[in-house]
Amino acid sequence: MRLEAGGRFARGKLVAAADLAPFLEAVLRPGDRVCLEGDNQKQADVIAKALASVDPARVNGLHMVQSGVVLPEHLDLFESGVARRLDFSYAGPQSARIARMLFGGQIELGAIHTYLELFARYFIDLTPQVACIAAVSADRDGNLYTGPNTEDTPTIVEATSFGNGLVIVQVGEIVDRVPRVDIPADQVHFVVDAGKPFFVEPLFTRDPAAITETQILTAMLAIKGLYQPYGIRRLNHGIGFNTAAIELLLPTYGEKLGLRGKVCTHWALNPHPTLIPAIESGWVERIHCFGSEVGMEDYVRARPDIFFTGADGSLRSNRAFCQTAGLYACDAFIGSTLQIDLAGHSSTVTPSRIAGFGGAPNMGSDARGRRHPSEPWLRAGREADPDGPPALRRGRKLIIQIGESFGDGNVPMFVERLSALDLAERLDLDLAPVMVYGDDVTHIVTEEGIANLLLCRDADEREHAIRGVAGYTEVGRGRDRALVERLRERKVIQRPEDLGIDPLDADRAMLAAHSIKDLMRASDGLYRPPSRFRNW
Amino acid sequence: MRLEAGGRFARGKLVAAADLAPFLEAVLRPGDRVCLEGDNQKQADVIAKALASVDPARVNGLHMVQSGVVLPEHLDLFESGVARRLDFSYAGPQSARIARMLFGGQIELGAIHTYLELFARYFIDLTPQVACIAAVSADRDGNLYTGPNTEDTPTIVEATSFGNGLVIVQVGEIVDRVPRVDIPADQVHFVVDAGKPFFVEPLFTRDPAAITETQILTAMLAIKGLYQPYGIRRLNHGIGFNTAAIELLLPTYGEKLGLRGKVCTHWALNPHPTLIPAIESGWVERIHCFGSEVGMEDYVRARPDIFFTGADGSLRSNRAFCQTAGLYACDAFIGSTLQIDLAGHSSTVTPSRIAGFGGAPNMGSDARGRRHPSEPWLRAGREADPDGPPALRRGRKLIIQIGESFGDGNVPMFVERLSALDLAERLDLDLAPVMVYGDDVTHIVTEEGIANLLLCRDADEREHAIRGVAGYTEVGRGRDRALVERLRERKVIQRPEDLGIDPLDADRAMLAAHSIKDLMRASDGLYRPPSRFRNW
Repeated sequence: MRLEAGGRFARGKLVAAADLAPFLEAVLRPGDRVCLEGDNQKQADVIAKALASVDPARVNGLHMVQSGVVLPEHLDLFESGVARRLDFSYAGPQSARIARMLFGGQIELGAIHTYLELFARYFIDLTPQVACIAAVSADRDGNLYTGPNTEDTPTIVEATSFGNGLVIVQVGEIVDRVPRVDIPADQVHFVVDAGKPFFVEPLFTRDPAAITETQILTAMLAIKGLYQPYGIRRLNHGIGFNTAAIELLLPTYGEKLGLRGKVCTHWALNPHPTLIPAIESGWVERIHCFGSEVGMEDYVRARPDIFFTGADGSLRSNRAFCQTAGLYACDAFIGSTLQIDLAGHSSTVTPSRIAGFGGAPNMGSDARGRRHPSEPWLRAGREADPDGPPALRRGRKLIIQIGESFGDGNVPMFVERLSALDLAERLDLDLAPVMVYGDDVTHIVTEEGIANLLLCRDADEREHAIRGVAGYTEVGRGRDRALVERLRERKVIQRPEDLGIDPLDADRAMLAAHSIKDLMRASDGLYRPPSRFRNW
Repeated sequence: MRLEAGGRFARGKLVAAADLAPFLEAVLRPGDRVCLEGDNQKQADVIAKALASVDPARVNGLHMVQSGVVLPEHLDLFESGVARRLDFSYAGPQSARIARMLFGGQIELGAIHTYLELFARYFIDLTPQVACIAAVSADRDGNLYTGPNTEDTPTIVEATSFGNGLVIVQVGEIVDRVPRVDIPADQVHFVVDAGKPFFVEPLFTRDPAAITETQILTAMLAIKGLYQPYGIRRLNHGIGFNTAAIELLLPTYGEKLGLRGKVCTHWALNPHPTLIPAIESGWVERIHCFGSEVGMEDYVRARPDIFFTGADGSLRSNRAFCQTAGLYACDAFIGSTLQIDLAGHSSTVTPSRIAGFGGAPNMGSDARGRRHPSEPWLRAGREADPDGPPALRRGRKLIIQIGESFGDGNVPMFVERLSALDLAERLDLDLAPVMVYGDDVTHIVTEEGIANLLLCRDADEREHAIRGVAGYTEVGRGRDRALVERLRERKVIQRPEDLGIDPLDADRAMLAAHSIKDLMRASDGLYRPPSRFRNW
């Protein structure tokens, strides 16, 4: 029925861009579950614009089930009544507006998910009736090339197309033969030639010039105090300058510590430009990517030994598999956050912004279904439960929060109460949007040192381990100095000097690259940064 | 290099079956990581046979990374020295021989994984250099049709092909046009026409005639004591007669309780024939499948509203996505086990058999990365932590172990010490192969009643909740009767009579089908059971 209704606007599978709005009015029914592809990077922007222009008298009350609420049109849909209910994962640039609309009751919230969790529901109770996706190109049969930003597309298409739904794709161009087939034609129902590439955001580029010495200090602490003793080889880094600093210290500070080949060899990671120096100096064996990064295309193409690339030479990212890899095949996750409370719960929610979860809670949780041992994982398990019976004692995933005690705008990272709780009250949510729960966090790294929460034996010790690295924030000043010193004797807290690190050594000279230009040079000119990062 | 070496045996991508052994000798190098596709159902059996016949002087020390060790050839490889190291998930029919070979040191064990966990490692540190897979058919370009038993294939191919490795496929036939493209040709390097279908095992067919009244009683307890009060809509059933009994009681006992539409609507499940009566009486909205089941092809084809099917009409199973769905989108897992100890740890290991994990530990673990609430999940969380701060209190996945206190051969299910511990000692394993850990199990159901471990407040209560449903086993007889009664008053233990269930009502007449023939009838003749199940 939908297929026939849509077919009236199509020649074969091809729908003209000018007919997109009436076509959508023909195939959509009120209340449909719809996935409008969009995550933190790529967007089906042309279809989004068309959907925002349909007549709400004909198409209304849609239930949007999609990774990202990123484009203004994603929220315009709810203002016009075309959409009513929302299940999503991430709302970066729209986090303030989505908060206002939720407070105002314009959006009926299903839930905020992690990416992998939302994908899981696509196969159970949130299967889209219609998916609007984005690809680089299509051939005349409808075979799709999604290119380096493959990301969520295969997962959305598999759930929708095999789940009795309709798949509509916007492509940048129609070609005789696609460079490789990322999505076979028989899974695709309609193709729209958008005449231009889909929108994609460079989200993982951190300019080395902006890394501070405090961030370098926290990176040194992480490398010497955690990566080295645990021997962390398989890991995921979150976004941010603290982890970018770690990446840029591997070929210098890490090399001096003799860690090449012993840590950071296998990654679940986007193609971070700041990892280029480590890759080029032989630190990295393998990287699997959630998505791509604008400007990294040619560099990735030149390193099929490191990155997952296709027969055409370009990256094949896959968010679902990379999230699974981060969950089950990595021993450590390290990321920054906005707030950490006294129990170690962390959140990126502020009273007026709902950024969503993305992938962090999936990476930042202990994978209790894991059954294969590894040294870092077993050691963490022993620290948490030294008296447990060895063969029945599980390991623990290392989940590390890293940041400065005072973050952007001098706002303290440590708080008595998470803003997420206020949000939960205001929206009457069953769950406060906590990014990483305190019982999953194993370490907190700040410029004051490392708190090892695995070694804490009760809630009081845990609280003081946190206060003990909270610097001059109110939480930090509320510490019981004697208890903190006792924790330090037990190595629950380790100061820079306890690890033989002189904060004065935390110098920008140690970074393997000092600028975007240096990263280009390290890539032998293959990394081509987007213009916004070119300040020369 | 491998591609060129193999190309000498190929016309285009086509390698003659007779050349398979020398071809494999040409493309494989000593020590290669190799995935020989095989899980609990489908097998790349023709390639397995050829690989077992290669010259160990040329090909040796392979590191096998594969879901299933199921065919004799899988282990022959280790006897001849062609393979040395093994990372796997499941070893059903080979469980005794693999144990002997591990004891004898003929196999160097990497680890025993869950399926999803092994897939995860394919993208991080266990990427195959060569994958030998199985498909129904290929066209002349190498596009593959995997048919209903798609299972692990897309995941293995994605990791191997994009991971710079070689993909070799055995197909049942070469056709002009495949019914649908499950794997695009540009991900496939070599195709072998095996001239016959790959081996596939019907593993999920339970004959209703073999279901006992005790199993019916435990099924009634599960439905009335768990499915109803928690309102479990999204779930996974393990294999076994206890859960088959639940499936066959839904249209009768479940209907009487008024539960249609309120429980068991969305499933992560193989196409169990015993679910046909429930599907046909309108209980089920959606099922996503790990694999297929021999005989269910036409029935599944007739219900694209329920099952995930392709443009060709046949099932698209996908083990990776279904495991993810079971992990993150289901509120409950229920399965049987061989042994449960006093802490609630369960295992299917016996002293002389290593069956592996399959998917159960992934289903049977609390998904701590989950962030979307649901009623069953929140209720379980409240029961576990009634005093916790609501918005910071996570829910819990319901993980239910069901069985009779004395299992097959009158062997007690409850034990003081798991055989898995003896195995761990004998093989010097870091981890005993525990299927579901005690801290993840929420309920145990036996003919004596339901133990709700969420309501236990310490290890002693937990032990006695378990003893309290352990019947006349030694563990059961070791109970403190007074403590068990107190637990019963608090509903930690519920007897059949506490739930208004009369064990005498547990009658085979209640089953919606009494035989395989009844299941065929319920399917309107579309279910075609394999001959071994036809006793008429």
